[in-house]
Amino acid sequence: MKSTTRHLTFTIPERMDFLNITPQVREIVAESGVQEGLCLVNAMHITASVFINDDEPGLHRDYKKWLEELAPFDPSPDKYHHNRTGEDNADAHHKRQIMGREVVVAITAGKLDFGPWEQIFYGEFDGKRPKRVLVKVLGE
Amino acid sequence: MKSTTRHLTFTIPERMDFLNITPQVREIVAESGVQEGLCLVNAMHITASVFINDDEPGLHRDYKKWLEELAPFDPSPDKYHHNRTGEDNADAHHKRQIMGREVVVAITAGKLDFGPWEQIFYGEFDGKRPKRVLVKVLGE
Amino acid sequence: MKSTTRHLTFTIPERMDFLNITPQVREIVAESGVQEGLCLVNAMHITASVFINDDEPGLHRDYKKWLEELAPFDPSPDKYHHNRTGEDNADAHHKRQIMGREVVVAITAGKLDFGPWEQIFYGEFDGKRPKRVLVKVLGE
Repeated sequence: MKSTTRHLTFTIPERMDFLNITPQVREIVAESGVQEGLCLVNAMHITASVFINDDEPGLHRDYKKWLEELAPFDPSPDKYHHNRTGEDNADAHHKRQIMGREVVVAITAGKLDFGPWEQIFYGEFDGKRPKRVLVKVLGE
Repeated sequence: MKSTTRHLTFTIPERMDFLNITPQVREIVAESGVQEGLCLVNAMHITASVFINDDEPGLHRDYKKWLEELAPFDPSPDKYHHNRTGEDNADAHHKRQIMGREVVVAITAGKLDFGPWEQIFYGEFDGKRPKRVLVKVLGE
Repeated sequence: MKSTTRHLTFTIPERMDFLNITPQVREIVAESGVQEGLCLVNAMHITASVFINDDEPGLHRDYKKWLEELAPFDPSPDKYHHNRTGEDNADAHHKRQIMGREVVVAITAGKLDFGPWEQIFYGEFDGKRPKRVLVKVLGE
C-alpha cells in the first residue's frame, strides 16, 4: 500500500469565492505513483468546503446568490447565536454544510477517474486569510 | 490490496427521479472478493447525485417537492446566470449539492456494512439521457 | 493492510441534538494501529448524520433553528407524504441530507489529520432511541 499526504494553503481575497484546485490534486496523484486507489480532498477549516462541480463563472455566481439566500451573512448576535462569541462568521459555518467538507475521488490507471465536467473546487466562505486543504492518496 | 472499478450507465426517463442501485453495488462488491474495505459510489455527472436514504415512494415525492422549492427549475437566463451559456439545467447543479455527489460505504466480512434501512440511490436532476455512476472497491 | 470496524450506539434524549464523538473515534484509530490511512464515520440510520464542524453551543443552536426552517417537523400526512406510512419523521430524512451521512478523515502518523477546530459530531434528528454509528479504519 502506498500513501501520500499534502497540505495545501490558499488565501482567497474575497469573503466568499471558489477556486479550481484540480491541477494541484492531479499533480499530487501523479507524484504518489498510486495506480488504483482513493483520493480524499477536504477543507481543514470549518468555514470552507471542497466540492466537485462545473468550472463555469455563471454557475458560481448563482451558487453565491443561493447560499446567501439560504444562510445570509449577518455579523450581529441577533440572527446567529454563534456570533455572540465575538465571531461574525456563523453564516459561513452554514454555507459549508450545504456545499460539503470533502470529496473522495477514485484513482484508476494512475488518474482521477472523472466524468467529463468534474472539477474539484475549494469553496471559501470566510476568506482573506490563509486556510488549508488536505489531500490524502491511498492505494497501490 | 484488491481493487475493482465499474462504470454503470443509467438513462432516467424523467427530468428528476431516484433509482435504487443497491443491487448493482452489492453485486460488484461480491465480485471484487474484498472482505474488509471501502466502497465509493459517485455520480460522474455534475447534475446528479448518489445518496443513501429510504426506499419509500412518499419520501421521494417529498424530496422532489423540497428540492424544487430550494432550487426551482427555470430555464430562463434571468433566474440563473448559468443558463446564459445555453444550458437550462442550473437548478440541477444546485439540487445535486443538497443531495451530495457520493457515498463511501464500509465493507465488512465481504458485505456492505449497512443499517436496516440504508439503500443507495442514484439521484437524477437533468435526465432523459445516459449518465454514468462509478463504483470503486478497495480493500483486502 | 489493516482494518478495524466498530459499531457505536447512542441514545440521544432529545428529538434533535448534536453529540461530539471525536474522543471515541480517536480511540478507535489509536487501537487500530493504522499509521497512514482513512477513517470512515457514518450514521447507520437514515434520520441521522455524521458531520464535522465547531464544538460551539451557539452554533449548534443556530443549526437547529436553520434546519427547522429548511425542513420543519410536521407529523401530519399533509405536509409530507412520507408520514402517510404511519411515520412522523419525514423532516428528519430531509435534515439529514443537509448535514450529510458520513465523513472520511485522513489518518497521518497514527492520528486524525485535523485542522484546529475540526470535531466529529453525531447529528440526531429523530432521537430518544438507540441508534448506531459505524467507524471503519483502513490503512497500514
